[in-house]
Order: sequence, then C-alpha cells, then structure tokens
Amino acid sequence: MTEDAALLLIATSELDSNLYYATRFLAPDPFVFLQVGARTILLMSDLEIDRARAQARVDEVLSLSEYEGKARQRWPSPHLIDTVGLLLEANGVQAVTVPSTFPLEYGDRLREKGIRVATRPDPFFPERLIKSEEEIAAIEETQRHTEAALDAALALLRESRIKGDQVLWRGKPLSVEDLKKVINVSLMENDCVAQHTIVACGLDGVDPHNQGAGPIRPHESIVFDIFPRSSRTCYFADMTRTVVKGKASDRLRRMYDAVLAAQLRGIELVRDGGSGQAIHEEVARVLKARGFETGPVDGRMQGFFHGTGHGVGLDIHEPPRISRVGPVLKAGQVVTVEPGLYYSRWGAVRIEDLVVVEAGGCRNLTRASKLELLEL
Amino acid sequence: MTEDAALLLIATSELDSNLYYATRFLAPDPFVFLQVGARTILLMSDLEIDRARAQARVDEVLSLSEYEGKARQRWPSPHLIDTVGLLLEANGVQAVTVPSTFPLEYGDRLREKGIRVATRPDPFFPERLIKSEEEIAAIEETQRHTEAALDAALALLRESRIKGDQVLWRGKPLSVEDLKKVINVSLMENDCVAQHTIVACGLDGVDPHNQGAGPIRPHESIVFDIFPRSSRTCYFADMTRTVVKGKASDRLRRMYDAVLAAQLRGIELVRDGGSGQAIHEEVARVLKARGFETGPVDGRMQGFFHGTGHGVGLDIHEPPRISRVGPVLKAGQVVTVEPGLYYSRWGAVRIEDLVVVEAGGCRNLTRASKLELLEL
Repeated sequence: MTEDAALLLIATSELDSNLYYATRFLAPDPFVFLQVGARTILLMSDLEIDRARAQARVDEVLSLSEYEGKARQRWPSPHLIDTVGLLLEANGVQAVTVPSTFPLEYGDRLREKGIRVATRPDPFFPERLIKSEEEIAAIEETQRHTEAALDAALALLRESRIKGDQVLWRGKPLSVEDLKKVINVSLMENDCVAQHTIVACGLDGVDPHNQGAGPIRPHESIVFDIFPRSSRTCYFADMTRTVVKGKASDRLRRMYDAVLAAQLRGIELVRDGGSGQAIHEEVARVLKARGFETGPVDGRMQGFFHGTGHGVGLDIHEPPRISRVGPVLKAGQVVTVEPGLYYSRWGAVRIEDLVVVEAGGCRNLTRASKLELLEL
Repeated sequence: MTEDAALLLIATSELDSNLYYATRFLAPDPFVFLQVGARTILLMSDLEIDRARAQARVDEVLSLSEYEGKARQRWPSPHLIDTVGLLLEANGVQAVTVPSTFPLEYGDRLREKGIRVATRPDPFFPERLIKSEEEIAAIEETQRHTEAALDAALALLRESRIKGDQVLWRGKPLSVEDLKKVINVSLMENDCVAQHTIVACGLDGVDPHNQGAGPIRPHESIVFDIFPRSSRTCYFADMTRTVVKGKASDRLRRMYDAVLAAQLRGIELVRDGGSGQAIHEEVARVLKARGFETGPVDGRMQGFFHGTGHGVGLDIHEPPRISRVGPVLKAGQVVTVEPGLYYSRWGAVRIEDLVVVEAGGCRNLTRASKLELLEL
C-alpha cells in the first residue's frame, strides 16, 4: 500500500458498513466510492443519483450512466470495472487501496488494466473504531430499546405460572417463540430490527449460537441475547441476560455468581491503554479460580470457550476484540463484556454489557439489572 | 476456471446467500465451505461446530481449531488462509473456483501459496435460480405475510379521514412512520423482517428508492413497496402497490392505467424461453404508446427508468433481470414484474407482482388487488 494510493470501495452500503460510514448514504444496490487525497466522489446510477446528491456526505456525485456512455465508446459492452477505470483515469489514479473484502473479480480486472491494487487489513477506516459523542448516543439509544424489549419479555415470564414441568401463559405453554415475538415487536415499535435474537432455555443455551426454540421449561436457565440495529441511525446495541422461571439449582446459582464476578472484573479492567488479551485472560482466570474448567467433554467444548467481548457500532461484530488476540483498547471504543459458562449437564449462563472505553475506566451503557440471577 | 477445480466459499452465511444455499446453515461469523467433486466439507469454529454437525447439509464438518493447531506447527501466527491451505492440501486441491465477490485479500494469499484461483461470474450456483416446489412455497408464504402487512396499512388509511390538506388518524396527522410501523409489526408477527420498506407519498415517490417520511397528504399517490425476508425460511417476497387517500387527479389515474396495462402485458410475456430484454422493451413500449415519455427533465430522470423486474429468492435482488440486458427466462425462476412512472410534476405509480416462470406462461404468487387505483 502506497501512502498516496486512492481509496476505492465498490459495495452495497446497506450491507457494507465501511461504505455507509464513508458516505452516510444507504442504498440497496452497489455503488462506487473513490477518495483521492481528501476529495470524495461517488459514481451513482440514475435511480439513486438525486437522493445521493441530497443525502450523501461526499464532495461530488457523478452519473454512472454518463461514465458508462464514455465506456461504450471504447468497449462494445463495458464491464463495471471498465467504467470505474475511466473514473480512475480522469482522476489520475494509478494505485488504489481497497478493503480486504473487495471482490476478487474486480481486483483482477483492475490489475489487468495496470492499476495497482492493495488490500488494507481491517479496520479499513481506523477512525471508525473511535466513536464520536453522536455515535455513542446512537448506540445508547438502541441499547435503551434493547432493554425495553427485554423488559417486555420478562413481563411475560412474570405473568406466566409454573404447572408441573410446564410454564403456562394465558392458559397455554409459553414458548421461546412467544418471547421472541414480544422482543422483536417491541424493538420494531422503536424502529429497531432484531435478527437472530437468542432466547435459549436449558441445554439449548449450552451452544452459544443456538437461537433457541420450543417450550420454556421451569427451573432452567434462559439466556436472552438481543442485538438489534436501529433502522434510523444504523447503529447496533448488544445485551445478554440470564434468568430462571422458578427456582435455580445451587449449581446454576454458583455458575451465575462466577460469570457475574468475571464480568465485573472484566469491566473494571476496561480502560484506555488496557490490553484486550490481558482482560480476556483475567476473566478466564476468575472463572477457573471458582472451579469452572474449560475444555472438551465427550467431544464437546464446555466451560468458557469464546472471547470476552467485541466492538459494536455500524456492525454487530467489529474490532477491537477482547480475546486471546485482543489489542490494546482506546478511549472512544464501544465494546461488549460478555463472559459465559456452558455445561451440557447444567445449562448456560452469559451476562453481557456494552461499555465505552474511557481514560482510566469505562462507562457502562447498559442499565438492565444483573445483580442476581433473576428468579421470576 | 478448470472444470475440476474445487469450489471454495469463505463468508458469513447470514449475509451470503450462496453459502446459506450450499449448507442450509445460518451463522453470524464467517466459515469455510469446500466442495471437492461432489463431497462438501465445512471448517467450523468450536462455537458453531456442534450446531453445524446437527444442522448443516454437508458431508463433513471439520474442526477449525484442530486445523489451526496444525497450522501453528508451521507458522508462528497463521492467517486463516494458511489454515485453509492445509485443508486444500489434505484434499489434494490445487485449483479453486470462488464467487466473484470472494475477498481479494484471501485470493491474493491463496495465489501466494501457488493455488490457482478463478472467479465464477454470478450466479455461482446456477441451480439457485431454478426454485424447487419447497422454495416456491417458502416465497409464497412470505408473500402472504407481505399482503397481510399491506392490508394492515390500508386499514389505517381507510380509518383515517381527510381534513383540509391533512389526513387525520385518531385525531392526529397520519404519517408515513405510522404506516411503516403497522407494516413492520405485522410482518414481525409472522416472523418476517422488513428492512427499508418504502411508503412514499406524493413527490417522495418520484425517487424510486426514497423510503418516504413525514405526513401523508390527501389526493396524492402513495407507493408501498414491501420486501421482507422470512426469518424462518430465509426467503424473500416483494410487492408494490400504489393507492390514493382521497381523489386521484385525472393525470394520476392515466398514469396508473398505463402502468397497469404495461405490467399486465409484461406478465403475459413471462414464460419459459421468454427474453427478459424483449419483455422489458415491450413494457417500455406500452408506457410510451400511452404518451408517457422517459428521459431527463431539468437534469432529473423522469418516466420509466429502471428495469421491469428481477429474480427473488434467498436474495431480494438476484438473477435473472428483466431489463435492457435481461437473459432468457427459464421455468422455475421467480421474478418480479414492476413497471413504474415517475414525474416530478405529478408523482409516482409503481405496481409489482411476483410470478413463477412456467412453460407457456407464469403463475402469479401475488393476490393483493390492483384492478384499479384504490381511492381510500
């Protein structure tokens, strides 16, 4: 990568957060972003050009169809990259830096034209990791809606009652699907979209990405992991809470206390200059010190076998990681702290908050209670 | 591309429909898919491996961490592509075919290892375009939920009343936001997620991708374009209807009749062996024959300046296109037929149905009425 290479993105901003970050323009079809020095340029279809000119935070929005017209004067049926080649030519660009995810076909075609193409490892825009006050406010707003959605689900659990090995709500067995619907509708009411919400009861929760299904059973852990995106601001939030309908076993309660202690210790250590790797190792140490081992049992990983946290912003998973390979944290980053314990004999516990890294500590954006294993 | 090259995908199946299609396994983090001959293999993290073994429709699910362990014996801190290189080596693979969207960084690293990497233009799995009965049923189910959501919004419009230049609902000005909320909540109730739903009133609709905002005004066109995805099946549907609260002008009514005539003509021509290009040209011809011209006015495109339709399935926009470059249609494809007219003086009309291409014709999956410009 040469320092003076232009930046080139060709992507769909609804799916590619770098492109949305660079332009603040949401569109459902791919478009071209070029940055030459400090100057930012879009190449936009007729369908989007008016809206892009009104909304996109760039210096210039050029007409894709005009450039395609020029390309047709040279090639009978030009490829998009032929057209992009003309844009690069017009701007004197001979070398571009692209994201590591830039489409290989486009890279190959640019190189065939003699353009030097280098990928930049994530984060493509390092400044994306440091959130502005406006961005933190957007994340916090999504977080408030996430908490309202959890509250709606907990209200359902409170209303329901235990009969034998069933949990009944309005006379019928309460299901994970009932709880997810309440959560997702509550989020939708606040213009947030939740995909893949996890409501995992009992042994379902032992697989951390199992989204859960079927009837809620009493006296078992129920893991709620809710991570919606605001349709208005595009910023995510992320929160996990573990509760029990009925009475938790002593074992489950000890697991909960260990996870909570590890999580609080992790949060204590989050600060500007703190090492993601050191935080993760300390969180793992707290769990192990309380007797909760990690490793394969019957061919299946048990204990604490995922990272402690990850960045949250325009993507639900973004740098930095707080994990075995976690880098040093910097003020303004927004990260989760979410240890968990998973045992196929006892069930699962995970507790997750969202915090802003600050000098000398962090600010917790999460308000939902976690002071004890809630028995509803 | 050599005929016997292995297929390699490295992507996030929640975002990459080819990977979901190949595996029927949804996960929020990237994983590796390799097909050697007819044999399909996944390389999966500890976090997902149990769920993948239970759910993924592949021949073998291998442990990423085991392969990473092998890679660490050769390299101090191996890159994912080092690990993938060992998987290729173990399977005697020296050439891979990847999607055109395969990350450039991975392509470069594979080539540095001496692996031949060729991109295959879309569609990567050509069989994805031809929907099975099961897939058509899934799309049709999402379509029914789409219609229920539109009905909910139309009920609100019917309940509301006109006062001067306002539309009042329960005593307050009815807004686009009110209508979208009703639509999205209705979809959520049916486990469908709608992003970027368009409810565009009056001149907002003249920009086909303007999602709309603000108060509903009487006597203007309101374009509803609703395209949710089922969280259960992952299949999309897509429908557009245009209505008026109050009384449509004669001009708007003539626009509506022209779009409807063009759309019906387009649907008539959809059949196995029909040319997407010819259908698009005929749809454009019908609009022009009724006096509706297309071209720039005051620097802005007006008339009919988008394609007639596109494939729908695991992606909202997939091949084939029915457009200037549309290919020949084949039985089993599911496509939209959605002409529109957009004039900054009069407003917008678009009508969109979803049809299955069959021998000798097509089957319309859309049941929502469109027989006249609905005046509510």
